[in-house]
Amino acid sequence: MIPQDTHLQIGSLLFEGLDQIDLTGPFEVLSRIPNSTYRIFAKTAQPVRDVRGLWLTPDANLADAPQLDVLHVPGGSGQEALMDDDEVLGWIRQQAAGARYVFSVCTGALICGAAGLLKGRPATTHWAAFHLLPFCGAIPVNDRVVVDKSLVFAAGVTAGIDGALRVAAELRGDEVAQAIQLYMQYAPEPPFNSGTPETAHPAVLDAARHSVRAITAQREQTAGRVAARLGIAVPPGAAA
Amino acid sequence: MIPQDTHLQIGSLLFEGLDQIDLTGPFEVLSRIPNSTYRIFAKTAQPVRDVRGLWLTPDANLADAPQLDVLHVPGGSGQEALMDDDEVLGWIRQQAAGARYVFSVCTGALICGAAGLLKGRPATTHWAAFHLLPFCGAIPVNDRVVVDKSLVFAAGVTAGIDGALRVAAELRGDEVAQAIQLYMQYAPEPPFNSGTPETAHPAVLDAARHSVRAITAQREQTAGRVAARLGIAVPPGAAA
Repeated sequence: MIPQDTHLQIGSLLFEGLDQIDLTGPFEVLSRIPNSTYRIFAKTAQPVRDVRGLWLTPDANLADAPQLDVLHVPGGSGQEALMDDDEVLGWIRQQAAGARYVFSVCTGALICGAAGLLKGRPATTHWAAFHLLPFCGAIPVNDRVVVDKSLVFAAGVTAGIDGALRVAAELRGDEVAQAIQLYMQYAPEPPFNSGTPETAHPAVLDAARHSVRAITAQREQTAGRVAARLGIAVPPGAAA
Repeated sequence: MIPQDTHLQIGSLLFEGLDQIDLTGPFEVLSRIPNSTYRIFAKTAQPVRDVRGLWLTPDANLADAPQLDVLHVPGGSGQEALMDDDEVLGWIRQQAAGARYVFSVCTGALICGAAGLLKGRPATTHWAAFHLLPFCGAIPVNDRVVVDKSLVFAAGVTAGIDGALRVAAELRGDEVAQAIQLYMQYAPEPPFNSGTPETAHPAVLDAARHSVRAITAQREQTAGRVAARLGIAVPPGAAA
């Protein structure tokens, strides 16, 4: 917990083709943390579209970001384009060196991995990319939220809400996080028990794997390149 | 369930001062419904800010909307400014007359109520505004999601995700909704049991009620005006 009178700088990375709720879920929580400034940073000031077409607009350029206390990295298929982007990866490395927390959601973990942050660390990501964590040197943990000192990982998409509430509790204590959760009326009642590969109907899971096969194949290729660049010997069986 | 080969028009109302996840939560679900077009409509084409500062950009003006199959109305404190807005209320009434579903989230229910859609209907809304439903002639039901024929109501903020999955199932069947839920990895694990007034710690609830007292007082005043306009005799005890 950080002293309540310490002002916190919280920032999210925005990029073309992110999955918007990887950003907007945590936004709902992180923008309500007392005595903090929350801003969204991107390579340029231009609006970008999420993977389904939602326009989102950054508050400032990467270069204009102060040292952040919390760096939030969302995912989505647009993550692929950042995996070899020296400007973005360098910015993440530089911010991570001084941040209290780096918080990734979904395949944002792969971006952090490409920046070299995940070597030897427990981590999680979206179920469809989970097998790629060893390519970044991470130890895959099949939990919805993984907290390892200064690194917080949320699994796919909506896990970012749970992860952000954990981050809020780490920063400002349980009561603050509980107040935010109450405001958000976050007492979820999913209509189906279909939110994980373990619980979904096999036919639904097969169709879902089929629908992500193109982006998964691309991610596997990229993961191999990242592993080579980071000098990581991928354990046998980790390859797709 | 609508025949799979019937193309669906799905649209959200966007306005200044909405609570962004009332829109972006359902966006994540509704934008993935097969054979549909999803767009965001507002009074003007200009970007607007949510209650915490997130910029959101509409796809088109209200006047450019086709007849929608699903009209989605989010809430947030900016809802107040729409409660006497003839252009918006008229648009909602006109769309509702031809829509298969009207789906409100949070205090979006009050906007629908001001448009006269809630008379004699069971409904829900954010816990802090729940006592105002009778002023629109609605029958308050303390459920997370209330489905009443063509009207679907989600309670506060994050309930929109649960509500949208219900709408997806109504439109395209359970398997489609389950596939979207799996993609979103929606198997929530809230870190606290603090998401409703009934479960939150009393001190947390007191503080939360205190923090919304200004907007609540304003909403109560508006609700009285709406009841008078709609010719609704508010039952004794319903007033704040």
